[in-house]
Amino acid sequence: MDERIKKHAEILTDWSTSVSEGDNVLIRANPSAHELVVALHAEIGKRKANPVTIYTSNDASRAYLLNREGEMKTPEHMHSLFDKSDVVIAIHADDNLTAMGDVPGERLSALSKAHKPIMKLLSEKRISITQFPNNASAQMAGMSLEAYQDFVWGAIIRDWQEVHDMQEVLRERLADADEVRITGPETDITLNIGGMVPINSDGKNNLPSGEVYVAPHPDSTEGKILFDMPMILRGREVEGVMLEFSGGEVVDFSAERNEDLLKSLLETDDGARRLGELGIGTNRQIDRFTRNILFDEKMGDTIHLALGYAIPRSVGEGKKGNESAIHMDLIKKMEKGKMYLDGEMVMEKGKFVWE
Amino acid sequence: MDERIKKHAEILTDWSTSVSEGDNVLIRANPSAHELVVALHAEIGKRKANPVTIYTSNDASRAYLLNREGEMKTPEHMHSLFDKSDVVIAIHADDNLTAMGDVPGERLSALSKAHKPIMKLLSEKRISITQFPNNASAQMAGMSLEAYQDFVWGAIIRDWQEVHDMQEVLRERLADADEVRITGPETDITLNIGGMVPINSDGKNNLPSGEVYVAPHPDSTEGKILFDMPMILRGREVEGVMLEFSGGEVVDFSAERNEDLLKSLLETDDGARRLGELGIGTNRQIDRFTRNILFDEKMGDTIHLALGYAIPRSVGEGKKGNESAIHMDLIKKMEKGKMYLDGEMVMEKGKFVWE
Repeated sequence: MDERIKKHAEILTDWSTSVSEGDNVLIRANPSAHELVVALHAEIGKRKANPVTIYTSNDASRAYLLNREGEMKTPEHMHSLFDKSDVVIAIHADDNLTAMGDVPGERLSALSKAHKPIMKLLSEKRISITQFPNNASAQMAGMSLEAYQDFVWGAIIRDWQEVHDMQEVLRERLADADEVRITGPETDITLNIGGMVPINSDGKNNLPSGEVYVAPHPDSTEGKILFDMPMILRGREVEGVMLEFSGGEVVDFSAERNEDLLKSLLETDDGARRLGELGIGTNRQIDRFTRNILFDEKMGDTIHLALGYAIPRSVGEGKKGNESAIHMDLIKKMEKGKMYLDGEMVMEKGKFVWE
Repeated sequence: MDERIKKHAEILTDWSTSVSEGDNVLIRANPSAHELVVALHAEIGKRKANPVTIYTSNDASRAYLLNREGEMKTPEHMHSLFDKSDVVIAIHADDNLTAMGDVPGERLSALSKAHKPIMKLLSEKRISITQFPNNASAQMAGMSLEAYQDFVWGAIIRDWQEVHDMQEVLRERLADADEVRITGPETDITLNIGGMVPINSDGKNNLPSGEVYVAPHPDSTEGKILFDMPMILRGREVEGVMLEFSGGEVVDFSAERNEDLLKSLLETDDGARRLGELGIGTNRQIDRFTRNILFDEKMGDTIHLALGYAIPRSVGEGKKGNESAIHMDLIKKMEKGKMYLDGEMVMEKGKFVWE
């Protein structure tokens, strides 16, 4: 077994989820992540905890949904499995990332609605979402498996305490700030984060991570921004997205490619036209776009804004975060941009002034 | 997908476990059974039931157990998952059937002890244990994958109502009988089943099935018997087993090969030297020994006796079935044998007198 798989399992059970004696650990994995599942079992054994592994598969979900008519209820056995788990480790590694492409959207929505109480339980758990490098994901990134393995484990196998400490400077600056302004080519946008809670995302809930994010006030965004990285929606790329905000709401938009998808996204609900997140990517091991949001949004020297719902813990007490059925990240490279906090420039060409 | 996989999934969800609307279905499967998992998801979808699939793997269990020291407790999340399930479908198909060979026996025992309350729950569920034909199982049987697929699905895809009706004649005869006598080369043995409950095993709890079994009175067995099919214990074959009983207990034994394993089996506990089951195999689609007890014990024209515990539902109300930590089936071909019920011959050379 590749030593990096063992190291990956060690980081997941140690740094990310602190698995300890007696913990009930739930692993979710596709068969192509088999070696990481095996390595996790060794680590969970060493820590005297109890593993259960759920088999996830786009093929199986597709077969179920294509044949499943009518309303769906929350499956009680699945709910109680999650309810009694202390730790959840979710490994992404399906053999075919486009296998759900012909499942009608309303079936997917019915399933996610039925699973909503289960997803809600997750916020109370020590949870980590990670990626195992397989051919399907390598192909989605336009890479060989070997090069993709180097990429994935390069981003994952890091000194996360050091990442935490480095990001802490940024988190503190954001915590003290009210107004964030981002400028660059075709971009000049401001949003207010006063009293909101910036989160140091340091390899726990997401592995890899490497970002600091915060919920903006939903009615505060003003100005326009050009996103120069593609947004992936239902397997299709929406490129060159331009959004213009007034009073927090998108009042104008365009895209160079697949603008119709962007339009339908914005029409999902009222919250889909407002921001739920400002994120700043710091993981410079992620040096390319791989069509995988777990990696893309953490890319060093980028920022992202998410249309849709705000992550509750990034919303200040007594403050209102944006609400929506969607959460769609849009990424902007900062190599030609600047970021200001309350008028003071803190980032230029991707570098922080304190670096 | 091979049409036989769809048929297999249909029999499992229809005849074997009667999956219906709202049922919580738990599938246990190794990744090499992927296609059957997918086919089951389609059937479960049609029936508006809810699937959860647990990933089983000898590799993962081995990694866990080699690293897991000390006492183990029943994992609460796994227990509640089984507890809230209405139907359990367990698919055997590991990629390496000998992968657990270097796990110390005491770790396996500690795990089975911790899982005992979960196993106990299974008796209240609609459960079916089945096999998906993969290369590891084909190799264990000494066959090609293609020939093994024909063998497995030949035994599984049958008119189970017809099997049930055919076996019902035998079940009724056993229900009326007190003394069973089996004779043949180096064999003349009697045991008492009066007041016990013969079970028509017709493709529900085991798929394939094709046997009628009953618990004998634990102190009733007298005489000797030669088993001409190998017994597989920890991946090793014990051949030419001869057992001699008095007062229900094994008083003499021998084996042509690996007698030491037979000896250690008999020394497990007191119940390991008494019988827990008489079974009569009726599935003539199973025409060869494949080193897989799910198939071997159902082979047409054979009988088997199990050392160790009696299946509770085959024990009559108020009667005592044998108790032990083990249940080990020993199989005898009846091509040169006869079986008598209360002195009346009912089987000769494997054929029932009413056939």
